[in-house]
Amino acid sequence: MSDLNAAMLDMMIDMGRRARAAAESLRATTPDARTEALHRLAEALRAAEADILSANARDVARARDAGLSEALIDRLALTPARVEGMAAAVEAIAAQPDPVGGEIARWTPANGLDIARVRTPIGVLAVIYESRPNVTADAAALCLRSGNAAILRCGSDCLESSRAIAAVVRSAVAEAGLPVDAIQLVPVPDRAAVGAILAGLDGAVDLIIPRGGKSLVARVQAEAKAPVLGHLEGLCHTYLDAGADLDVARRVTLNAKMRRVSVCGATETLLVDRAAAERLLPAVAADLTAAGCELRGDAEARALVPGMTEATEADWTTEYLAPILSVRVVGGVDGALDHIRRYGSGHTEAIVTTDEKAAGRFAEGVDSAIVLINASTQFADGGEFGFGGEIGISTSKLHARGPVGAEQLTTYKYVVRGEGQTRP
Amino acid sequence: MSDLNAAMLDMMIDMGRRARAAAESLRATTPDARTEALHRLAEALRAAEADILSANARDVARARDAGLSEALIDRLALTPARVEGMAAAVEAIAAQPDPVGGEIARWTPANGLDIARVRTPIGVLAVIYESRPNVTADAAALCLRSGNAAILRCGSDCLESSRAIAAVVRSAVAEAGLPVDAIQLVPVPDRAAVGAILAGLDGAVDLIIPRGGKSLVARVQAEAKAPVLGHLEGLCHTYLDAGADLDVARRVTLNAKMRRVSVCGATETLLVDRAAAERLLPAVAADLTAAGCELRGDAEARALVPGMTEATEADWTTEYLAPILSVRVVGGVDGALDHIRRYGSGHTEAIVTTDEKAAGRFAEGVDSAIVLINASTQFADGGEFGFGGEIGISTSKLHARGPVGAEQLTTYKYVVRGEGQTRP
Repeated sequence: MSDLNAAMLDMMIDMGRRARAAAESLRATTPDARTEALHRLAEALRAAEADILSANARDVARARDAGLSEALIDRLALTPARVEGMAAAVEAIAAQPDPVGGEIARWTPANGLDIARVRTPIGVLAVIYESRPNVTADAAALCLRSGNAAILRCGSDCLESSRAIAAVVRSAVAEAGLPVDAIQLVPVPDRAAVGAILAGLDGAVDLIIPRGGKSLVARVQAEAKAPVLGHLEGLCHTYLDAGADLDVARRVTLNAKMRRVSVCGATETLLVDRAAAERLLPAVAADLTAAGCELRGDAEARALVPGMTEATEADWTTEYLAPILSVRVVGGVDGALDHIRRYGSGHTEAIVTTDEKAAGRFAEGVDSAIVLINASTQFADGGEFGFGGEIGISTSKLHARGPVGAEQLTTYKYVVRGEGQTRP
Repeated sequence: MSDLNAAMLDMMIDMGRRARAAAESLRATTPDARTEALHRLAEALRAAEADILSANARDVARARDAGLSEALIDRLALTPARVEGMAAAVEAIAAQPDPVGGEIARWTPANGLDIARVRTPIGVLAVIYESRPNVTADAAALCLRSGNAAILRCGSDCLESSRAIAAVVRSAVAEAGLPVDAIQLVPVPDRAAVGAILAGLDGAVDLIIPRGGKSLVARVQAEAKAPVLGHLEGLCHTYLDAGADLDVARRVTLNAKMRRVSVCGATETLLVDRAAAERLLPAVAADLTAAGCELRGDAEARALVPGMTEATEADWTTEYLAPILSVRVVGGVDGALDHIRRYGSGHTEAIVTTDEKAAGRFAEGVDSAIVLINASTQFADGGEFGFGGEIGISTSKLHARGPVGAEQLTTYKYVVRGEGQTRP
């Protein structure tokens, strides 16, 4: 190992140790103290707007020099409105009920013990993300709300912005009397830091959360020695059932695809019930085309919508994140379920129908984190679910599925009260 | 790869495929059908007693020939009473509320969507265990109750017994109209089967549950490509606080250590508050010694209990699973928490005290799956918790902690009902 790598590893291990100690101290803080820290943080972000924007301007300038695409620069760039958005998100998280200490269940079995299942923080979370600097504030706020310490590792593109935001976070945390190392940002762009985190920092990391593109998440899932809560991709489907109302089908499909094409909850494949394709598809397709969406269909869809290009097998497996939609005609709910089972990523699927039975069979048969009935797949979002914010959408089946807010960043323990009982 | 290994891998991949298909079919079964299958299974186990015992006799004879210890043979050996115990456990699990489809939460955020968080099966579970043949029936029953398909891999010692039990399970499942491949047992003792499971069977395994000794669990956690729910060990502590009632301290400690020394919930280290050591320790130690327990103490403990041998650093880190107890005098709740933080395994800890404040600080400060107040650590058990049975005690922090019953073998999805909502 080179000296540089050894020094990096030492720094990361030390960061892990400090995070563990901070997690222990956080355990003794009150919900009110954590709420107070979040309010201070929101105010401090507003007060530090100029510093944050000037750090961000340096990141953006470097990104332009490096020839990054405008789409990436748009993810990276902050504006006064975006800084205000960060502060407002922190306030929304502050307004969430504090999950720690909440009783999930309580009962007394035959042995007379009083058993309570109580929410507790997980401990130390490592969040690995890419070029959106607002994640620094969002992740910090969600970790504070849930009583966890966090090690944040941002992409090198947004390092200066994230440092400026992390400095604001840490002073707000310290001023509120919480342990300053509750939130730590890896201060250097070295890639070895990610390797160190994946190796678990000597057992100091309880959970790794990758938030970013497919290759980042895949690397984390393949290499991590600690548990991972990640989303792989959002290959979301909207299914128009024979029982669909035409108006609902038109506006839900248009929104599900085109509201924002780059989010993981955007619909990538439209499935249409053969029994109603003639009634539904032409109007739905016309709306999409008028909005600038390219349609790629199977033979039956193309027969109904002239000018649609031909879909290949690859279209069913592609998360476009672009104004492109694949379209397939299927045999009712069962046909839709077959397609989703084969090609879906377990993220979010929607059915449009007025037929309660069809809706029920679809909701039961789809094994995805989120199933929507008569609503847009773009609602797959922690804010829309009422969580105040989210650290991502989990497509893991274990621990938490769907939007991951503060509550999903907790675990539980059993507190069992007896009166001297011994086990027979 | 040798031909043998290739054939084994093919068999295992095929098993994974059939498990996945069975999991899909199970999704469409009703709670009543699953309850019916469990009742049939309990009856069928009783009816097959002779077959099961004769298969078990062959396992036991082979184990004796191989020179296995009497302790291991005791784990392996079945008797009519133990077969009845298996049947009774299946009935207790049948009597549990079926978790699948249960609504965990339901709310309507500002967007007007009706959001329900609904319990669903995880999918395909792989259970890897060692020489206790009753696990074959327990694991099958818990997986059926929770709507999961299971691939069971028993230790080679109990293969004939497990095959006999698995045959009973599969006919009961088929007779109840459930997919027969819902429960599959790896029919050969080949170790390559474990490797294939750890590699994830081409994505067919959603969760791996190792149930057995430390080395098995450690291997699974190190190598598994699918999520793992395991317990590493139970290094459980009982802490006698200054506020302890002497009688409760005596009977809880004796039970916590000596009821059964080989279970993971057995206490391995006794911590005694300095402020009350003189009052509590001599009597507690006398009870333990009289029951045949060896005591290994620090200097302060030895000063109070002549004849106690000297504890070394290794004693604080050893899960004895034997009639040996390490004893340390500590400075109150904080001293106990420090010791547990440093040496505990996150399984189960108990405090004996009548002081509510001390109990509260202990319960809050201990980051273990189970914290007991005035009760024996040996209550760490799914049956005692009212779960009907358990597949083990999880010391993982993610997904499920403590006893893992049918409910802990489920995940959830969101079923979201709208009226044509689109996202602004």
